[in-house]
Amino acid sequence: MRLKRKDKVVLKLTGSLFDRNAEDIKAIAEVLTDALKELEGLTVVTGGGEAARRYIDAARKIGADQATLDEIGTEVSRINARLLITTLGSLAYPYPPDTLEEAVKASSTGKVVVAGGFQPGQSTNAVASLLAERLSATILINATDVDGIYDKDPKRFSDAKLLKEVTVAELRRMLEGGAIHAGTYELMDPLALKIIERSKIPTRIIRCSPESIRGVLVGRDIGTLIVG
Amino acid sequence: MRLKRKDKVVLKLTGSLFDRNAEDIKAIAEVLTDALKELEGLTVVTGGGEAARRYIDAARKIGADQATLDEIGTEVSRINARLLITTLGSLAYPYPPDTLEEAVKASSTGKVVVAGGFQPGQSTNAVASLLAERLSATILINATDVDGIYDKDPKRFSDAKLLKEVTVAELRRMLEGGAIHAGTYELMDPLALKIIERSKIPTRIIRCSPESIRGVLVGRDIGTLIVG
Amino acid sequence: MRLKRKDKVVLKLTGSLFDRNAEDIKAIAEVLTDALKELEGLTVVTGGGEAARRYIDAARKIGADQATLDEIGTEVSRINARLLITTLGSLAYPYPPDTLEEAVKASSTGKVVVAGGFQPGQSTNAVASLLAERLSATILINATDVDGIYDKDPKRFSDAKLLKEVTVAELRRMLEGGAIHAGTYELMDPLALKIIERSKIPTRIIRCSPESIRGVLVGRDIGTLIVG
Amino acid sequence: MRLKRKDKVVLKLTGSLFDRNAEDIKAIAEVLTDALKELEGLTVVTGGGEAARRYIDAARKIGADQATLDEIGTEVSRINARLLITTLGSLAYPYPPDTLEEAVKASSTGKVVVAGGFQPGQSTNAVASLLAERLSATILINATDVDGIYDKDPKRFSDAKLLKEVTVAELRRMLEGGAIHAGTYELMDPLALKIIERSKIPTRIIRCSPESIRGVLVGRDIGTLIVG
Amino acid sequence: MRLKRKDKVVLKLTGSLFDRNAEDIKAIAEVLTDALKELEGLTVVTGGGEAARRYIDAARKIGADQATLDEIGTEVSRINARLLITTLGSLAYPYPPDTLEEAVKASSTGKVVVAGGFQPGQSTNAVASLLAERLSATILINATDVDGIYDKDPKRFSDAKLLKEVTVAELRRMLEGGAIHAGTYELMDPLALKIIERSKIPTRIIRCSPESIRGVLVGRDIGTLIVG
Amino acid sequence: MRLKRKDKVVLKLTGSLFDRNAEDIKAIAEVLTDALKELEGLTVVTGGGEAARRYIDAARKIGADQATLDEIGTEVSRINARLLITTLGSLAYPYPPDTLEEAVKASSTGKVVVAGGFQPGQSTNAVASLLAERLSATILINATDVDGIYDKDPKRFSDAKLLKEVTVAELRRMLEGGAIHAGTYELMDPLALKIIERSKIPTRIIRCSPESIRGVLVGRDIGTLIVG
Repeated sequence: MRLKRKDKVVLKLTGSLFDRNAEDIKAIAEVLTDALKELEGLTVVTGGGEAARRYIDAARKIGADQATLDEIGTEVSRINARLLITTLGSLAYPYPPDTLEEAVKASSTGKVVVAGGFQPGQSTNAVASLLAERLSATILINATDVDGIYDKDPKRFSDAKLLKEVTVAELRRMLEGGAIHAGTYELMDPLALKIIERSKIPTRIIRCSPESIRGVLVGRDIGTLIVG
Repeated sequence: MRLKRKDKVVLKLTGSLFDRNAEDIKAIAEVLTDALKELEGLTVVTGGGEAARRYIDAARKIGADQATLDEIGTEVSRINARLLITTLGSLAYPYPPDTLEEAVKASSTGKVVVAGGFQPGQSTNAVASLLAERLSATILINATDVDGIYDKDPKRFSDAKLLKEVTVAELRRMLEGGAIHAGTYELMDPLALKIIERSKIPTRIIRCSPESIRGVLVGRDIGTLIVG
Repeated sequence: MRLKRKDKVVLKLTGSLFDRNAEDIKAIAEVLTDALKELEGLTVVTGGGEAARRYIDAARKIGADQATLDEIGTEVSRINARLLITTLGSLAYPYPPDTLEEAVKASSTGKVVVAGGFQPGQSTNAVASLLAERLSATILINATDVDGIYDKDPKRFSDAKLLKEVTVAELRRMLEGGAIHAGTYELMDPLALKIIERSKIPTRIIRCSPESIRGVLVGRDIGTLIVG
Repeated sequence: MRLKRKDKVVLKLTGSLFDRNAEDIKAIAEVLTDALKELEGLTVVTGGGEAARRYIDAARKIGADQATLDEIGTEVSRINARLLITTLGSLAYPYPPDTLEEAVKASSTGKVVVAGGFQPGQSTNAVASLLAERLSATILINATDVDGIYDKDPKRFSDAKLLKEVTVAELRRMLEGGAIHAGTYELMDPLALKIIERSKIPTRIIRCSPESIRGVLVGRDIGTLIVG
Repeated sequence: MRLKRKDKVVLKLTGSLFDRNAEDIKAIAEVLTDALKELEGLTVVTGGGEAARRYIDAARKIGADQATLDEIGTEVSRINARLLITTLGSLAYPYPPDTLEEAVKASSTGKVVVAGGFQPGQSTNAVASLLAERLSATILINATDVDGIYDKDPKRFSDAKLLKEVTVAELRRMLEGGAIHAGTYELMDPLALKIIERSKIPTRIIRCSPESIRGVLVGRDIGTLIVG
Repeated sequence: MRLKRKDKVVLKLTGSLFDRNAEDIKAIAEVLTDALKELEGLTVVTGGGEAARRYIDAARKIGADQATLDEIGTEVSRINARLLITTLGSLAYPYPPDTLEEAVKASSTGKVVVAGGFQPGQSTNAVASLLAERLSATILINATDVDGIYDKDPKRFSDAKLLKEVTVAELRRMLEGGAIHAGTYELMDPLALKIIERSKIPTRIIRCSPESIRGVLVGRDIGTLIVG
């Protein structure tokens, strides 16, 4: 499953990108700007990162319920979305949408829509798969803090092997068996998996670097492909 | 876990209620009207029922994606919400909210908010648990087409026993083991279970009848209690 | 008054189309897709049909006021709008608008806007004429369950003649004199007639079939033309 | 049909009130403030008056379509609504609603909602009757520039008689026969009449003066009663 | 600082334009329509004029607070925006935006957005500079009732000289020293000046006439240039 | 000017409060909860603090324009508003409003509305004074990082004296003369001063501590009073 011209791409960017320096964000914006003319559509979802965790901690100490904690994380992911919008300039829809419906409407302008989270109970990974499903995206790229999915935790096992391809069902088994390490927790959001599975959305897990993102966008076979 | 005065209740009503005749809906509205003065707050979520399935079938034949199918089911559940709002008259907030945020804002008027679904990827059961979590409800009542949760399928086994209480973890195991029959599928929505578990929301599964709903609301120990 | 290239069309589709099978809806979507490149703009309004009547009956039994009955019919017409949006894919604006203002804004994206009803007190025929007026449409096509307007009821009189052209004033006289049979009731919505008259919107009443719609769109002289 | 305690009132105020001096508006606001504690609910609709006509003229000269002319008149009526809101202070909902739905939601706060127009194709008289219907008002008071409905034009015939009561059907006949003079044109809005008729809303036509409004609100038999 | 092809222009039109006759508004709309193909983007802001002052006076007599007076002036400026939208036809976004965010979103459709005011505490001059800043406009043209900024009041001193260029700092000094006459009061809105200064937005003060506006748009050195 | 029962209070809380620990926020929430029954209304505005500055720095490095920087600061101030809302529980309106209009509407529910910023070009101090003006507040309390306004910079001059009372005009002169030190920069927002002056809103500058806030709310003469 390689990317072709006129693909419709949904790209999830890990929140940790926004904890790094401005150059990293600009480098990725450049990759997206270059790729854009080859694509039919591009929608980006940004995670919350360290800043989200800091705010969520503060809110938990104050006694906020889980739904409110999720909402606060969502607000931070939306500020990250604004940082990316700024780097994309007039290519991007000027504000992150509040809801899935607003995102889909914004997409119909032809601009790159950059969303953060939407609602409690959903990770930004779930948001990315919902958008991929609703917009009939041909691929969902999940740019994370790891190179892809391994058969065991690469931090603990030197012989851990990066999987080229995995089904949603296998991924679920690995999660239950504890084979997948905590750092990739977010990949496992049950709602995200359910959506990928039911709509058979080809999903590629890659590292969030300009090189990897450019690689996938020009059709290179990078990271792990999850098949629905 | 019995209901006390000044409880804050979220009540999910199965969509099939709205496939029955007007008297059934009115009877339940009457129960709610009576109970209201004893409660600190009441929020109701209505399912989609047969009409939703009919529309979803039509949309599937036309080639709609899964997210759009969910959205169409959501629209029908919102029409059901309007039917209940009509029977409740000025006790109810006059329109079903579009989003969780709108529902929470509407709740702050003190009226009974009646919601249908909100978003693709979420059953109306998930909506009910999200509302229960966000509104810090003291109980979530799920009025379904069955009397509660059985240890095996009561349609196939005459010795099936209604469980008085079950944990979310046990419920998950039963689902995986296939002990729970298809008809109660919706109870098993993974997002709904995750929310109930993480926020330890006491949840009671009962049959959707005026008697059962009145029973739970006056503190009787009916159906199955799910503990977070 | 024939359709020319670069016409701006508002098309009303009878709700009964959505009571038929998926193939009928798809066939009409195909006609519209073909015609689109010849038009400056296309806006579609969908009626409520049998499903709307069923829900309105249910709400009436519950004791809903007339305005709420209208609102419920409106909700159903909007679900019908979504079915058509699905078949039109990325040519269509992705959601039916809630208000006239939202419809006009959505039209400025260049997409085909598909609306249902907007407000109590207005039939979807009135909505179609309001949109035709506000968007300065060059023609309003009303695709109904009949072939056009007859001088007497064609079900009772074998010599009933299809009128090629009729003025709004003549139409009003026929309505008052009882010459027009009940089945075409909706055509007579006083608000729709007032709008057509005051803005002199050329309006063609045709049967809702792929052939008739295609015919009018390629400039054939089908059905009855109402002149303002 | 006299007003009772706990009536739910919709009051239409002629736009010409806002062409007069501030004292007149304040005097009416005082009457409403006094009456409020006796009522279950009060909703006010303000017309556009001379300022609306001036703006509509300007827009017509520029070449605006009829729908846009209506929208501009609507905007002016909404500014008039704001003037009344200011005089009512914290008794009033702080902004005029944009749509019927927003008006109904605002009413559920218990404040006096003051609306102008909503949509093209509807006079503010139609808005008032739609609100009366949707809110299940017990009476609609239409405060106009005349004392009520006469059997002939009182400006031309010295023996013209104020009618105590008239049915919608009689009113329609008088309009068609030309018995009703142009100055009361707005009373005849066909949508307003249709709503009053179908929902049998008791409607009283009175002169827009503090005395008449107070009179009706304390149950005096003033002006003309239209029965549905 | 002359205008070049592909400039992004924000144009403020004095409210008094809308107190004149329809021909003046149409003449300016024609200039804008002609210029449009040479520009990357055009956003227009309309003032309130005499009609705004009339309504503000009425509201002051009723006892409205300053914020409400501002809001009423804003509503009138938005009606003026609609008059211009009408003359621009399908080149314009069809409604004036309610907020800065909505204006920026509307701009991303490529249409000419025509705004009135947004919020209390801001003149429409401040709105124009905020839009210029947020949209990264290359020039802000302020079409007023005067030819530009003079070194002293031209009505009192026959030797008053039109300044070709002035800095924001010099302008502030002139204002404090009383050198600038009352008629140009609006130019001095402190928020407008702050925005122009902090973002160094080249701003040209010209007379609101078709000739001057056309002149600036084709690059002629007219009126006074304020440099940030 | 001491606070009386039934005062209508707008309280601005410095953003730095939200950089401290949870206990500080809870302590202030407790003070507000206690005071509430003595007040006719309470509206709170939260600043952005260190987190806002961090995000603004990141956005500046990426090349964001000033208006976008303001918007990002606004988003962070709104997250701070949510933290306070959480501590206030059901006393607070559940979400921070997006605009002044939404804030005023939310106030009409009787809940404590907690707002962050609204728009570029406005500090949260300006937001607080706009709300005080629009809601006809009887006092604006500005809880800052200093004890009040001094005649010279207390960090550099040991004989600096806290002023009991100062007029807006005097404050402007001190600002221009450089007498006021940088740390109190935000107090000087020209829009905030203009609003306080034109509407003569009694404004008290105090330190943001539970003791000072409680003190002012029970009528003690703390900090500096600015008179309009």
